[in-house]
Amino acid sequence: MPRQVTAFSNPLVKLARSLRDKKHRRREGLFLAEGLRILTEARETGRLPELLFFSDSSHKLIAKLIEETEAAGGEAIETTSDILHKISGKDNPQTVIGVYRQFDTALEAIDRAAAPLWIVAQALRDPGNLGTILRTGDAVGAGGLILIDDCADPFSVEAVRASMGALFTQRIAAARWETFLPWLRSGPGQLIGTSLNATTDYQAARYAKPAFILVGNEQAGLPRAYEAECDVLVKLPMLGKADSLNAAVATAVMAYEVINQWRRA
Amino acid sequence: MPRQVTAFSNPLVKLARSLRDKKHRRREGLFLAEGLRILTEARETGRLPELLFFSDSSHKLIAKLIEETEAAGGEAIETTSDILHKISGKDNPQTVIGVYRQFDTALEAIDRAAAPLWIVAQALRDPGNLGTILRTGDAVGAGGLILIDDCADPFSVEAVRASMGALFTQRIAAARWETFLPWLRSGPGQLIGTSLNATTDYQAARYAKPAFILVGNEQAGLPRAYEAECDVLVKLPMLGKADSLNAAVATAVMAYEVINQWRRA
Repeated sequence: MPRQVTAFSNPLVKLARSLRDKKHRRREGLFLAEGLRILTEARETGRLPELLFFSDSSHKLIAKLIEETEAAGGEAIETTSDILHKISGKDNPQTVIGVYRQFDTALEAIDRAAAPLWIVAQALRDPGNLGTILRTGDAVGAGGLILIDDCADPFSVEAVRASMGALFTQRIAAARWETFLPWLRSGPGQLIGTSLNATTDYQAARYAKPAFILVGNEQAGLPRAYEAECDVLVKLPMLGKADSLNAAVATAVMAYEVINQWRRA
Repeated sequence: MPRQVTAFSNPLVKLARSLRDKKHRRREGLFLAEGLRILTEARETGRLPELLFFSDSSHKLIAKLIEETEAAGGEAIETTSDILHKISGKDNPQTVIGVYRQFDTALEAIDRAAAPLWIVAQALRDPGNLGTILRTGDAVGAGGLILIDDCADPFSVEAVRASMGALFTQRIAAARWETFLPWLRSGPGQLIGTSLNATTDYQAARYAKPAFILVGNEQAGLPRAYEAECDVLVKLPMLGKADSLNAAVATAVMAYEVINQWRRA
């Protein structure tokens, strides 16, 4: 049976609220996901929350979440929308918020043969971009996202929100470049970079499985030394005054070209 | 000669600060743009700020902005980084912020023959998405962005920031659907919609100039009645669990397919 919590001072409310901060997420090994759509996506991939806060159990999918969360040993907590607002920090909080255990992000846990395509982000700073890239990764059938160097936290509220649940369907790994490169070269894999310095149009190159699309930092792009390691370095057509696209947009345009080539083959 | 302002209570500082709110932007007909990159982009398209706040004039491009702003009748104001922080609301404020006059957004001011491609956004709510779409529009050689129904404010700080200056290179119009549709049909134009309900793959359709790519609301997508008016209704391949992409990402994937077909022709 769900228990009722209406006090802001309740320790579980405080714990959930604290997970908006990276420091607390890291210490607890937990993160927040909000909204029925994302929590249902998580459930369908076999992930259930350790804590499930809800303000309305009349929806069938919420009732199902409550039941399965409790059956799996988690705790379902009926609360007020004021408290959900306090936890999420949003003006219009969702009617359901889950507290999940963070996943293993070891590079060694990635099985490259599990998917034809992987996305690799280097020093990506915007959690919204990171979440959007996860969402695109899901759409193009990527296996997951490998985070290189200092990236935004994939377990941040903004990243989870922008991923629209893809955080739960995509594998996530984190590694330094010095670790990633030997791992990549220890098996098959075509490393694809986009660069202003490239001379090859992105539609002129041929992409091979498993493909690893490497995306650089929003401001600086890829370091030259990383570009030099790419098997294919291509440029996207830029017909206007600007010389670059948003990082998540560039990733998607690149990824769709890769899968389009494979769809034609 | 730039004048110096160091008081938070200065009326020009207060005016600039107030432009973070839509109500004040609308009343004053002004908006904020931040950062040397965006202000230089604006200058290159012939747009100079009415007020230019800066904390450091040693950079050649800032000196040029100051000179041209004053020559055009605007006011250059030397100030502190604390005040720039107050105006922008960012922790790491840019060293230069401009206050610009809003552009005319009348649909009748759009000359469709001026570009092969236009983007039309319907009820797009996220100003970051809107700015990102402007940035993509510039990259694909679009003429501009037509905002249908209740969209986010293109002159908001978030939209200007995400546009990376494309706000100044793209035409922007705003109209109700009931006004837009007769305008569209009064001349040549292929209306292209993406939809979960479509059966045609986006690479199977043929795109004609001038093309109008219609993007729907982030949550709801396009209304069925709007889809029914599209000349071409296509779907993007979705290979994973999710059924949709981020709106700015979907727009970019669609737009690149359109220009790729034309590049091959």
